[in-house]
Amino acid sequence: MRIAELSRASGVAVPTIKYYLRDGLLSAGELTSKNQAQYDERHVRRLKLIRALVDVAGLSIAGVRDALAAIDSTEQGRHKLLGQVLHSVPVPAALPDDDPGLAGGDAELTTLIGKLGWAVKPDNPAWRNAAEAIATIRALGADVVLERLAGYARAMHDVAELDLAMIAEVKDRERLIELAVLATLLGDPLLLALRRLAEEDVSARS
Amino acid sequence: MRIAELSRASGVAVPTIKYYLRDGLLSAGELTSKNQAQYDERHVRRLKLIRALVDVAGLSIAGVRDALAAIDSTEQGRHKLLGQVLHSVPVPAALPDDDPGLAGGDAELTTLIGKLGWAVKPDNPAWRNAAEAIATIRALGADVVLERLAGYARAMHDVAELDLAMIAEVKDRERLIELAVLATLLGDPLLLALRRLAEEDVSARS
Repeated sequence: MRIAELSRASGVAVPTIKYYLRDGLLSAGELTSKNQAQYDERHVRRLKLIRALVDVAGLSIAGVRDALAAIDSTEQGRHKLLGQVLHSVPVPAALPDDDPGLAGGDAELTTLIGKLGWAVKPDNPAWRNAAEAIATIRALGADVVLERLAGYARAMHDVAELDLAMIAEVKDRERLIELAVLATLLGDPLLLALRRLAEEDVSARS
Repeated sequence: MRIAELSRASGVAVPTIKYYLRDGLLSAGELTSKNQAQYDERHVRRLKLIRALVDVAGLSIAGVRDALAAIDSTEQGRHKLLGQVLHSVPVPAALPDDDPGLAGGDAELTTLIGKLGWAVKPDNPAWRNAAEAIATIRALGADVVLERLAGYARAMHDVAELDLAMIAEVKDRERLIELAVLATLLGDPLLLALRRLAEEDVSARS
């Protein structure tokens, strides 16, 4: 198909497609003449994925590039590959390295992980994100939130078990990576929306 | 304290403080002369809260304004107030109203809520967010994610029960609203970071 048809099939405007092509997020079509290229279903699929990562997961173009790089990497085994996916799209650090509360947040997280017995290493980028959130909540005096930290962690462990069970079910290797990225990045806003709906339900019953 | 001291106590630069003052996010200090104002601990506290909402919760200035308006509202009872907080900082819609998948996402969410027996109404802004996430995941063919939707919802219900138990514990009314906003907005990045750490743990065990 030509670029106009690709635009119709994907719902992405032609100038945006050209931007993604220039930026390398979308691979070039097959040149059929000097000024014309042909695109196929893989291009449609990739465009829909990019739009979902931008619109629903809220990623920047740089974040999309990282996520696509994780999807396109083909060197790892299944476990390593999942690690790659999980590490590939870190949330940027919100606090400076010398923030006075950060060491305390880190120590609280270390205690929590030890108490839960989780096999998790501090080089996971999410470690820093969690330590920052804990430090910020503590700095604002919201100790009642942190008293429930282990409960929150256990609920998210249930989520992680569903995530991994899903990934184990997928046989097609290429699809597996895409799904792991999708489930993580599109699952995030879904989980947060479900949290607010559940809060309404619990609030209505109390 | 004068503005330079307020800057030191809060860790927020003077030009940023002046911007918040002009923008009405921070209330004016008490004028002690034509060009000088005095600030107090409430200003320090409010500045820390604004920075946390921007840096850790990732809110825009408009989002911060909505969150602060919810904190500052004093008209509602405890239950209504929580609803106000939950409704006050909606995630902006990611899909246009006429998106072809949105009605399907909405229908799937209606089925899910019915199956779970949740007392939730579609005017909750999170309803639209959840319907959009479901529609996007479905459009990308990630059905294995949606097969686990009820499981994800139940895990987030556990989170919501902790949220509400925490809120019930707080006696001071002004503090209650601030905590509800904090727990929701700063709790979001914390939960997502815990999800990734838990994924590492489950992955290491499998």
